[in-house]
Amino acid sequence: MHTFTLDDRLRRDTDRIMQLGLCQLRMMRDSRWPWLVLVPQRDAITEVFDLTPLDQAMLTFEQNLVASALKNITGAAKINIGALGNIVSQLHVHIIARFEGDTNWPGPIWGHGEAVPYSVEAKDIFTRKVLEALDT
Amino acid sequence: MHTFTLDDRLRRDTDRIMQLGLCQLRMMRDSRWPWLVLVPQRDAITEVFDLTPLDQAMLTFEQNLVASALKNITGAAKINIGALGNIVSQLHVHIIARFEGDTNWPGPIWGHGEAVPYSVEAKDIFTRKVLEALDT
Repeated sequence: MHTFTLDDRLRRDTDRIMQLGLCQLRMMRDSRWPWLVLVPQRDAITEVFDLTPLDQAMLTFEQNLVASALKNITGAAKINIGALGNIVSQLHVHIIARFEGDTNWPGPIWGHGEAVPYSVEAKDIFTRKVLEALDT
Repeated sequence: MHTFTLDDRLRRDTDRIMQLGLCQLRMMRDSRWPWLVLVPQRDAITEVFDLTPLDQAMLTFEQNLVASALKNITGAAKINIGALGNIVSQLHVHIIARFEGDTNWPGPIWGHGEAVPYSVEAKDIFTRKVLEALDT
């Protein structure tokens, strides 16, 4: 039996979209980029290589599923994927759609400026697109 | 038969350490952080999800092998893993050892300041440690 408690900072900075096999799929409360976050529901894991081999394979599968869906719904020039965890140590994987000329392009999005909240409508539209793209 | 040509910028910015099953393992010519780069030897691939499922699994395996080795040889506080590709589109995965108080901690390393070259000795020591850690 695995227990799981979401980190407080992740809870504050992101909204839950759906549950995948291993991960919670969440979106960052920042409208500057289409920005999803996968959180494997395993306690006390900070590095991908600390997951079991099965969980590592599951994470790869879910990561690529979500990255591909995000590319399709946004038409992004590039998908950025990162597992950093320098601030929030609970393992989480960022998946971000990038466009030429977007905020801080071609630099990274982490630690850049202040989050710009979504409007209720824009958040709802983005959430629905993600759900539709993953509803296979 | 897969052909593969390394991107010019990757060739200029990194040195080859060894060949794994799928990837070339290379190190960034920047001594500010212990910084490795995996380059899957597949042509015309820019996103992880464009790899075949087998190659995706191989990449995950090699990524976690290298990340775990890098953690062991450096004693890093955190390993950062990222596939961005906003500048160099050829698929490559960064694996970086981070320490509290290192350059730009806890921010990301990409796009930060100017590279600081290794001395010949320091590069040789780091390369040998990586090779020993992966020689299983």
